[in-house]
Amino acid sequence: MDDAYGLAVTVQKAPECADKPESVDLSHHLSELAKARISSPLKSLYKYFNKPGMLSLAGGLPPPDYFPYESITAQTLAKNSFKTTEQGFAAWLWSLIAGAKKTDEWSIPKWDQDKSRVQLSSAFQYGTAAGLPPLAQFIYDFTARVYRPATSDFHCVINAGSTDAWGKIVTTLCNPGDGVLAEEWTYPSALATAWPNGIKPVALPMDGDGLTVDGMDHVLANWNPQEHDGMQRPRVLYTVPVCQNPTGGTVSLERKRAIYELAVNYDIIIVEDDPYYFLQSGEYKRKRSVSTTKTESDEDFLASLVPSYLHLDYQGRVVRIDTFSKTICPGSRLGWTTCNPVFAERLERANESSTQAASGMSQALVGSLLAEQWGYSGYLRWLKGIKAEYRNRRDTLVDNLLDVAHASLDVREASAGVYEVSRRSSEKFTSQSEKTRPLMSFVAPVGGMFGGWASGRVLALYADCSSSALCYFPARSSPLVPNDNRLALYPPPATTVWLRVHFSEHRQFRSTPTPELLMSLWEDLAEHNVLIVPGTIFSAAAVGQSLASSDSDASADGYFRISFSSAKPDEMGEACKILAQRVERFFRE
Amino acid sequence: MDDAYGLAVTVQKAPECADKPESVDLSHHLSELAKARISSPLKSLYKYFNKPGMLSLAGGLPPPDYFPYESITAQTLAKNSFKTTEQGFAAWLWSLIAGAKKTDEWSIPKWDQDKSRVQLSSAFQYGTAAGLPPLAQFIYDFTARVYRPATSDFHCVINAGSTDAWGKIVTTLCNPGDGVLAEEWTYPSALATAWPNGIKPVALPMDGDGLTVDGMDHVLANWNPQEHDGMQRPRVLYTVPVCQNPTGGTVSLERKRAIYELAVNYDIIIVEDDPYYFLQSGEYKRKRSVSTTKTESDEDFLASLVPSYLHLDYQGRVVRIDTFSKTICPGSRLGWTTCNPVFAERLERANESSTQAASGMSQALVGSLLAEQWGYSGYLRWLKGIKAEYRNRRDTLVDNLLDVAHASLDVREASAGVYEVSRRSSEKFTSQSEKTRPLMSFVAPVGGMFGGWASGRVLALYADCSSSALCYFPARSSPLVPNDNRLALYPPPATTVWLRVHFSEHRQFRSTPTPELLMSLWEDLAEHNVLIVPGTIFSAAAVGQSLASSDSDASADGYFRISFSSAKPDEMGEACKILAQRVERFFRE
Repeated sequence: MDDAYGLAVTVQKAPECADKPESVDLSHHLSELAKARISSPLKSLYKYFNKPGMLSLAGGLPPPDYFPYESITAQTLAKNSFKTTEQGFAAWLWSLIAGAKKTDEWSIPKWDQDKSRVQLSSAFQYGTAAGLPPLAQFIYDFTARVYRPATSDFHCVINAGSTDAWGKIVTTLCNPGDGVLAEEWTYPSALATAWPNGIKPVALPMDGDGLTVDGMDHVLANWNPQEHDGMQRPRVLYTVPVCQNPTGGTVSLERKRAIYELAVNYDIIIVEDDPYYFLQSGEYKRKRSVSTTKTESDEDFLASLVPSYLHLDYQGRVVRIDTFSKTICPGSRLGWTTCNPVFAERLERANESSTQAASGMSQALVGSLLAEQWGYSGYLRWLKGIKAEYRNRRDTLVDNLLDVAHASLDVREASAGVYEVSRRSSEKFTSQSEKTRPLMSFVAPVGGMFGGWASGRVLALYADCSSSALCYFPARSSPLVPNDNRLALYPPPATTVWLRVHFSEHRQFRSTPTPELLMSLWEDLAEHNVLIVPGTIFSAAAVGQSLASSDSDASADGYFRISFSSAKPDEMGEACKILAQRVERFFRE
Repeated sequence: MDDAYGLAVTVQKAPECADKPESVDLSHHLSELAKARISSPLKSLYKYFNKPGMLSLAGGLPPPDYFPYESITAQTLAKNSFKTTEQGFAAWLWSLIAGAKKTDEWSIPKWDQDKSRVQLSSAFQYGTAAGLPPLAQFIYDFTARVYRPATSDFHCVINAGSTDAWGKIVTTLCNPGDGVLAEEWTYPSALATAWPNGIKPVALPMDGDGLTVDGMDHVLANWNPQEHDGMQRPRVLYTVPVCQNPTGGTVSLERKRAIYELAVNYDIIIVEDDPYYFLQSGEYKRKRSVSTTKTESDEDFLASLVPSYLHLDYQGRVVRIDTFSKTICPGSRLGWTTCNPVFAERLERANESSTQAASGMSQALVGSLLAEQWGYSGYLRWLKGIKAEYRNRRDTLVDNLLDVAHASLDVREASAGVYEVSRRSSEKFTSQSEKTRPLMSFVAPVGGMFGGWASGRVLALYADCSSSALCYFPARSSPLVPNDNRLALYPPPATTVWLRVHFSEHRQFRSTPTPELLMSLWEDLAEHNVLIVPGTIFSAAAVGQSLASSDSDASADGYFRISFSSAKPDEMGEACKILAQRVERFFRE
């Protein structure tokens, strides 16, 4: 390893931000670790580094002549490779079978006369912690135009992926012993990153639209350290506000405003982890074959997305995490963090003593594609195509699930977007009330990659009839389970999310902890070739415990997350069929 | 961000390791942070992930169809681009002006029928924390064959560059309040990485060949926590044993054996940060124009390199950090850590909650080059060429310095490789004793990128005559400076390293702290277009302080590091000339 001088990248400020206020001083949120980070002692000497005529015997930089790469050529899909004008299964199938797409070919040379362009001699050299200048400028402009932050002095720091970013953010803001607020069901790696640093999650209530305002207010207003092993009221909220992982919930603008005001009142820093922002694909319609004549305009596209917390953040208390993992590719390990300048400076110092810069190879390949090939409008066109593709996948999975349900079940749309599945009259329960009692219900997710059974924004699969036969109830009519303390501190309200299996009717319910039953069902499904994710790993309250924790757990319900991001159409149908069969058998045996 | 399942890469074990012992249990060295790291709760479920026929609705993996990159083509220098058969200025000049070199062109497709090959669909996808399988296998085999570890169960973990690796290693082994042993002059970023975690450096004595055995033994044998603010005896040594940064010193095999035995006796973990291993280029010869008829064999090349601590490590207490920054390019942010399986597993967990995998773009570009284009022998040929290039640079800088010295000074080789520079009899000091008294001395470094004045393994530039005129003394005859506590806890012995300037003769010596004088000289040099690095930033004892610390410091000496890694031949000559002029003037004024 050697010297990587942490020269800050100077971006050209966006004119649209000029009239916005500056962020307020929030430096009291910095952790002891963050305050102890050492600025490079060479910082005061930077002014000489680019002095014309300087004879440098200073750096430990290998000469680019010794980099083996002379040029890199990429063949990339055209920005309009994915159709946005058709929807549903047929459109998706077409994109799958359409064969070779139009591609563009472009190269990055080792040296370019124009020093402002991406070139291997600088991109593959030691870089600054803030990132490669052309990519940094693109990202700053994109952030300014797409998210329209409410402060003029926001900074963007290129990072090595969202997990890396979050790890640096949480240790920059929290000390050991601090808590971090999080949705009660959340991305487990986020909690696993905070945990070993002695930073514990504090679960906040959710409903089908994400974090609830009342729930958050309640937790903060009634905070008593004595009830939390002495933990002070948390100062940091970790949230996935759009197409949440695992529940698929999306927080509305109105709710975001209310949550932001709570953050102002309680002096909370909001860390917005938002990988699915551009996958907000609108309501599901049964068996749709919509076809429009033209791609929506950039303005319409952006207006269709719920604004980021950044847009509401007039104080600079939002730290937004963006990633290229979902829109370009995960292997880039590349993204950026947007926040106030004080936090940004400390995050750059954190980069310097860990990853230094993100991979220069990633920055060159992504930077040249975005800044030099596609540009702002081209990237938006690409995003519209990706959004349409995930919408088609969502539609296909939901269609499939409803078709499978038809084999022995009736389906009806109970209210807008909410589907209920009932047993047919020919089945065991034949009275009118039993016949119309829904066995299963779900709300089709409005985007993202995840869903409950078939879709995921709401799905509950119950077995809490008084008889021993398997029955399904909609989540919204589920009884609260009083001793459900570990899996969900605040039992999810009726309109909440994803696959919920009620284990109280299982014959081993009293003798076997629910997590063990859940894992037993999970393993049975896996043995029958259906792989879904046990909900236990998403529990903010259960972080640090094993999936089949041995402590006695009498929760009646268990959860699974179902993803529609990568399966093919026929796989989705087949998986849904097997899932229904195995769950029924699991309870019968 | 999303799920990156930490599947361990299964490498094919090297047969040459089979008869070696397994590492001993050193798990008592794990920090509280390391022990608290959460294994992925999905770990027990991995066996299903690659089950044939599995219908996966589990992962949050974007389909590779949505990665814009269809193929990447690289044009790379031929592995034998740099001559190894000629040495010195002429050879280097030739490599500079020789123009376009032979290149190879190769491509990485998105999909390859052969799943074992590097391909974008998997390399650009979420990856495992242990790294891309073909690269991981190459690295494991390379480590086994080149370093010949003394245990059979060593593991290699791909990391995102050495700074990232060290940050994870030091927090995996040390708790806040612990100390880490380090050479008294060392790589400042390593200390800056440990420092905010409450891990303080403990400086160990060095001589011109690196860390001294007696010095290390003395510190460990006489450790008294009360003399170190309660700090227990450190359990971890951070060392750069080859072509050390900044001093250029290289620890011999014999000395490595003795240091390793100290580590066994005191239960120390040796962290070997070794970026310059392949740049060990042998002794400097004055005005050499050596020309051999053929490139040395792989065996001769490897035999010419001092063995790694890994080769001596029969217990598994060595953690070795390798990087591609010096041999491929820094922008890859790619390297690997070799250590015992217990530490490796915890380091993989640390990866999972930060960088996840190293950039897949880097792993694909470096992995395909090494594993599929060059192979083991091809990479060794490339390394020989790079070594020869740095040797030519070293020779050129030393030649130049001695030529410049000739303008007003005499040069003689005092002993093998040690050069002394004396004032000419026509100068002010004319008595016989003064005439033969050397003004300057240095040992030409045996490799790496750094040196003291002109070379760096040993150079001392003094101004400690009784007169006010500028004089030079060789380092080996320097008086110990009794109050030199901050810049070096253990004053460097006479045979030690790099540019040493004695400020006690400066007229502001009493009124101005030495670090300020040093920075004043540094700034004067920079104003006159010579950029070198103030030694202060390499001081293990002064980490966390500013360069021109305001606390009164009466040290008589200051240091500069001079690098020969990136300057061109004429720049080196010009810089040496200016340096001599400005230093003389600095003391005269």
